[in-house]
Amino acid sequence: MRQRLTQGLIQVYTGNSKGKSTAAFGLALRAIGHGFKVYIIQFMKGSGYYGELATWHRLYPYIQFSQYGRGCPYSHLIRQGEDSCRGCGQCFVKKGEATAEDIRQAAMALEKTRKIMATDEFDIIILDEVLNAIYFELISTKEVLELINNKPPLVELVLTGRNAPPEIIAAAHLVTEMKEIKHPFQQGISARRGIEY
Amino acid sequence: MRQRLTQGLIQVYTGNSKGKSTAAFGLALRAIGHGFKVYIIQFMKGSGYYGELATWHRLYPYIQFSQYGRGCPYSHLIRQGEDSCRGCGQCFVKKGEATAEDIRQAAMALEKTRKIMATDEFDIIILDEVLNAIYFELISTKEVLELINNKPPLVELVLTGRNAPPEIIAAAHLVTEMKEIKHPFQQGISARRGIEY
Repeated sequence: MRQRLTQGLIQVYTGNSKGKSTAAFGLALRAIGHGFKVYIIQFMKGSGYYGELATWHRLYPYIQFSQYGRGCPYSHLIRQGEDSCRGCGQCFVKKGEATAEDIRQAAMALEKTRKIMATDEFDIIILDEVLNAIYFELISTKEVLELINNKPPLVELVLTGRNAPPEIIAAAHLVTEMKEIKHPFQQGISARRGIEY
Repeated sequence: MRQRLTQGLIQVYTGNSKGKSTAAFGLALRAIGHGFKVYIIQFMKGSGYYGELATWHRLYPYIQFSQYGRGCPYSHLIRQGEDSCRGCGQCFVKKGEATAEDIRQAAMALEKTRKIMATDEFDIIILDEVLNAIYFELISTKEVLELINNKPPLVELVLTGRNAPPEIIAAAHLVTEMKEIKHPFQQGISARRGIEY
């Protein structure tokens, strides 16, 4: 018998501190323990070296995912521990300088979200960094509100990223702001494999 | 070849909103993707119906865990979806009314943490709800500071729970406050299987 949520809501994890995406991923880990299925769609992310990717592969078909955006050209080396992020910026979108390709990739992520919603196969859909994609002007607040409005009643939609627009906050049932009190970066400690990525 | 962190820090997830424990669990999911090993010690939790438990079992031996505290006497029924939390309070510790058994369980959790640290087998140790255990006077801030001070250099220690004491915040490298902007409870929606537990 397929598990269904009793009610599917809109959750937003925003703010400037660590824990937004990881809270969404922890929620996925919890949900599949009850037999629910999760689809994660990542905006502004590609060919990554993030550890969670390997774990999601291990949890297939309960967790499935797609990535849309520029990847790191050196992700294989970073994954292997032979290199680390040198801030080359090749995976970055600069505010006000989004390219046609950046916009096309984000449009693909939106289209994928619509398709995944339409399958009625997944109980939780996580749109990771979708709020950043709005901030960087790859997609519009209106497009995300349309997704929210067309969400099937028994699907939980989880949105992450900095700078949640007020219209999205108004439309959400749960909003947590991750507020930075302290961060290792302030203490000169750079990103570490297995923790920050 | 065993993976080791380059540097093990102290992380704190506190505040009054959703996402503290799930951020820690998402971090675990990320870490094991790089071959690290995670031990989760839960304070004030026992025989639970939380979905993450089933997923952790699936991820053994990369994620291992122990629980200390009162469990829910009806967790099997809730896990099966035939019942839900009725707020009976049997799993609760009331502020100022901790029993000797509550205190003994929390002491066991501290002792287990010391043992797990001493094995040098785990890269990330998550003390879930440990800050609540301080708040409910089951353990002292001093005991947790001792754990922090005795932490092996390459072990990441992650503490969750409301009301982080200032001494713990001072000792931490990363502190995120989960600030409640909106919560479904405010809208009369009660906890849902697969999402809240």
